[in-house]
Amino acid sequence: MASTPPPPYLAVLFTSRLIPGTDHAYDTTAARMLALAQTIDGFFGIESIRAADQTGITISYWRDYESIETWRTHPEHLDAQAAGRREWYDWYELRIAEVTRASSYTASNV
Amino acid sequence: MASTPPPPYLAVLFTSRLIPGTDHAYDTTAARMLALAQTIDGFFGIESIRAADQTGITISYWRDYESIETWRTHPEHLDAQAAGRREWYDWYELRIAEVTRASSYTASNV
Repeated sequence: MASTPPPPYLAVLFTSRLIPGTDHAYDTTAARMLALAQTIDGFFGIESIRAADQTGITISYWRDYESIETWRTHPEHLDAQAAGRREWYDWYELRIAEVTRASSYTASNV
Repeated sequence: MASTPPPPYLAVLFTSRLIPGTDHAYDTTAARMLALAQTIDGFFGIESIRAADQTGITISYWRDYESIETWRTHPEHLDAQAAGRREWYDWYELRIAEVTRASSYTASNV
């Protein structure tokens, strides 16, 4: 899904569960954050899936720690993080990881 | 979802799309692989979500490269990997990453 350069680069692993019945504002904010992340220098891509039980995994890929820090501390993103904790998330886990190896496969009949 | 120790540890990021109409054998094999991974020394946990459009993200966590290599080369897992390429996956991306930082949040009302 995300098109990334050869390693090394960084991955931010965000696993979460939304509080059941989370309102439409979450979706609006999530879409806005995606658009905003794409404007940050060093953003390489994002993969995000949420299941029917409201657990979700989002992986974003970045050039370096500086670009992640720019993203983490963007004023609009800080507001969204606060809203997330105040209104939307039952829990989340946030991990930062250094991608060292990558490989891909595509079926020949695709 | 996965309960991991303090970093450093490793993460295997597996993003994929199944061929539409993938048969029941995939689910059986996926469940068996999950059970098998849990028997490998150095396995810390797994998080996996698949969307209705058949794209999926699975993150598994490991103590070190040796434990990942034990898992990667397990004979039953090698068979499953071959079946996956032969029958089930449109495409996948596999990344190995070193988790350097982790934090978590739980809503106080949960």
